Amino acid sequence: MKHFLDLEDINNIDTLISEAISLKSNPFSSKKLGENKTIGLLFFNSSLRTRLSTQKAAQNLGMDVITMNLNSDSWGLEFEDGSVMNAGTAEHIKEAAAVISQYVDIIALRAFPSLTDKVKDEEEQVIKSFQKYASVPVVNMESATAHPLQALTDAITITEFKQKKRPKVVLSWAPHPRALPHAVPNSFAKMMQMIDVDFCITHPEGYELNPKITGNAPIVYNQEEALKNADFVYAKNWSSYKDYGQIKCTDESWMLTLDKIKTAKFMHCLPVRRNVVVADEVLDSNQSIVIQQANNRTYAAQAVLKEILKNVAE
Amino acid sequence: MKHFLDLEDINNIDTLISEAISLKSNPFSSKKLGENKTIGLLFFNSSLRTRLSTQKAAQNLGMDVITMNLNSDSWGLEFEDGSVMNAGTAEHIKEAAAVISQYVDIIALRAFPSLTDKVKDEEEQVIKSFQKYASVPVVNMESATAHPLQALTDAITITEFKQKKRPKVVLSWAPHPRALPHAVPNSFAKMMQMIDVDFCITHPEGYELNPKITGNAPIVYNQEEALKNADFVYAKNWSSYKDYGQIKCTDESWMLTLDKIKTAKFMHCLPVRRNVVVADEVLDSNQSIVIQQANNRTYAAQAVLKEILKNVAE
Amino acid sequence: MKHFLDLEDINNIDTLISEAISLKSNPFSSKKLGENKTIGLLFFNSSLRTRLSTQKAAQNLGMDVITMNLNSDSWGLEFEDGSVMNAGTAEHIKEAAAVISQYVDIIALRAFPSLTDKVKDEEEQVIKSFQKYASVPVVNMESATAHPLQALTDAITITEFKQKKRPKVVLSWAPHPRALPHAVPNSFAKMMQMIDVDFCITHPEGYELNPKITGNAPIVYNQEEALKNADFVYAKNWSSYKDYGQIKCTDESWMLTLDKIKTAKFMHCLPVRRNVVVADEVLDSNQSIVIQQANNRTYAAQAVLKEILKNVAE
Repeated sequence: MKHFLDLEDINNIDTLISEAISLKSNPFSSKKLGENKTIGLLFFNSSLRTRLSTQKAAQNLGMDVITMNLNSDSWGLEFEDGSVMNAGTAEHIKEAAAVISQYVDIIALRAFPSLTDKVKDEEEQVIKSFQKYASVPVVNMESATAHPLQALTDAITITEFKQKKRPKVVLSWAPHPRALPHAVPNSFAKMMQMIDVDFCITHPEGYELNPKITGNAPIVYNQEEALKNADFVYAKNWSSYKDYGQIKCTDESWMLTLDKIKTAKFMHCLPVRRNVVVADEVLDSNQSIVIQQANNRTYAAQAVLKEILKNVAE
Repeated sequence: MKHFLDLEDINNIDTLISEAISLKSNPFSSKKLGENKTIGLLFFNSSLRTRLSTQKAAQNLGMDVITMNLNSDSWGLEFEDGSVMNAGTAEHIKEAAAVISQYVDIIALRAFPSLTDKVKDEEEQVIKSFQKYASVPVVNMESATAHPLQALTDAITITEFKQKKRPKVVLSWAPHPRALPHAVPNSFAKMMQMIDVDFCITHPEGYELNPKITGNAPIVYNQEEALKNADFVYAKNWSSYKDYGQIKCTDESWMLTLDKIKTAKFMHCLPVRRNVVVADEVLDSNQSIVIQQANNRTYAAQAVLKEILKNVAE
Repeated sequence: MKHFLDLEDINNIDTLISEAISLKSNPFSSKKLGENKTIGLLFFNSSLRTRLSTQKAAQNLGMDVITMNLNSDSWGLEFEDGSVMNAGTAEHIKEAAAVISQYVDIIALRAFPSLTDKVKDEEEQVIKSFQKYASVPVVNMESATAHPLQALTDAITITEFKQKKRPKVVLSWAPHPRALPHAVPNSFAKMMQMIDVDFCITHPEGYELNPKITGNAPIVYNQEEALKNADFVYAKNWSSYKDYGQIKCTDESWMLTLDKIKTAKFMHCLPVRRNVVVADEVLDSNQSIVIQQANNRTYAAQAVLKEILKNVAE
């Protein structure tokens, strides 16, 4: 693995999941690997889990960590080729990415979508530009359309908790007061087609995700029907993809409850709005595995960073 | 010691002071203890001394440090039980505290009071919620009503500088343009009742601190009388506790001067407003020990973290 | 070297350049030197290169690093002697510098000029106050009038790339939409008089830098004439020094192009506004050495920190 921009960068998902689970039981086993190596964690947006778990993962591998809020700590970045930079942006990504590459051995990056310009968001300009102009590996800590570290975390968690060879996994849309990105559901849907699960998606009509990503995954508009016999229910809000970035449905009856998920395990990437996305009774029950899921963020990141470091060393 | 939320968490104050003084002369003696351990320093408010000294203390013990400004780097936190989270807050403390606990081995927290809602401030919702939902030790880096690391620092400093077995220590209110919290005077008053000093408090009428905290400590409304024969004068402004959070007195004559403190040592937790709280002549004299006092912040924090780490290891 | 406030603090420039180049090929060779030492990187202003490279340099030397945005993370600082602090500032530099000195072994500081008050900016109040009241070495990460780490970087870069004993180096003013400080051109002009180069400066009339700094360096108002036979062209905008902080010229014809620099190497401290200061064709050509120049920021900082650490140890 050179970069980790999306799930396609994974050579073998089973091996990577095994590696993560192995690191979880022995987190400091590769502490020599990252010696004298530095990772730069660059944030254009807020972060709690990603910020802490990626830092912890890197430190477990013996790396030094430099964290920066790119918007507030540094200069406004320009991404357009050939632009005459006489306005708000002070530094071009060509220089920024090349320069940062000289100070750190891995660049990890978070950059959310605009949710107003579909074409531009789908071009993944920020992370693609970093990849293009950086001379070191780039890791996606959630980009406009993908959150592969989260999806890897989810696959690890399902592997740990599943009680049958091929569990039924349902991704359910849920209400939310704000317009949210598609990165998490996109990467989750993609990942569920990479591992051995019986996967379906449920959401109100008009909330279809990008069909290139959901592929052959069945879409069931009736939430109750979709949730039938589910082993894992993954709740997540997203804004409309068709009417890009808009909120088309605020139907509270889509909120997940114990009555709906029955005996299924409940998953969510967090942060989660209680009693809007999911009822307290679910999160406070033994069926919720969101905390254990969040814990796996560390080992997902650590498995990816370890692969990248090994590749750099070779 | 499991948590360090308030001075009641100290088993034996004399032992802890001795430990701190011993670490001061040999700060790296326990560097193995914190190996592969991480402390998360979480700030809801500004900090200089606490931010630097706690980080230094942790590094002296061999720990990794992750610092976060919770308000700006991360998501708005919800503390109310059962709330329907369809407004400003994106993550509930139940998830946040449980999740953070998985990435760090100790959580240290700063969260100032509102100074508008006395009941709520006294409930210490933020730090108590972290304690409740975190699975790792929680350290108070100044909460709504207490600043125990500062009070421990103060006790260390008095121990170092005292020239008689039982020195006279006076806590004097002083003027300030802003409404300030009660955390520092509260913890100082409490600590002075834990060590062997002759303690009294002086402030304008109406500025009584919480009587449950000041206990039997004499209150003298006449500053001059209170300061008589003082060995240590500790200046600090606080807003009214009775008329909660309000400024009731701006009488400049309460400012501390050399003339008033005579030969006493001068202490303050810093930051201090010169020529408002205390005259330049005091801070610039040999009687001021505010810098030495601030230095002890490192060793107070280090002694506490060392006790917690030892407890975790057992 | 005790402090590194300006280029005058360098004992022997040739030795320091050699040290930096030697560290570049063996960056971890002095990792024992910084063990149990902490550097505090204190920023009043934005930074990318300086923030990352100084941190990397310190870590290469085995130091712990604490980074703070002084304005947002901490308290407003007061610099005036004798002021009655009843307004916006909460802490005096006398306390702040003395206190910070106890938590870190080296203070590194960035504080830009006002560009409105020439006298005050030239007094270098912020960094000089830190030097005055700190008890540990202070390093300039760009002050009101000087950026010596950048100038050292520039000297290293010219040493590496020069193909004749005494190359011709031209500092050329270039257009920019904002009023910029004089720190970089000041320090570059000073440095070019410390090493063996044929140096001249070109800028529109009225843009003369402080003559005490430019000294005997020839000033040529005709850019084309100045650039003739240049081996290195260093582009940089600055605001007027005479009409302090003002933009007197926006003439786009001063932008650097391939046609103008001919076969010269192109340098800039970055961030650079493309197609305003310099054309894409220059930055995207082999003649641009701005990325390699930025890389040397790490080794300039590392050479300086190493000298300071050695001095502390003695």
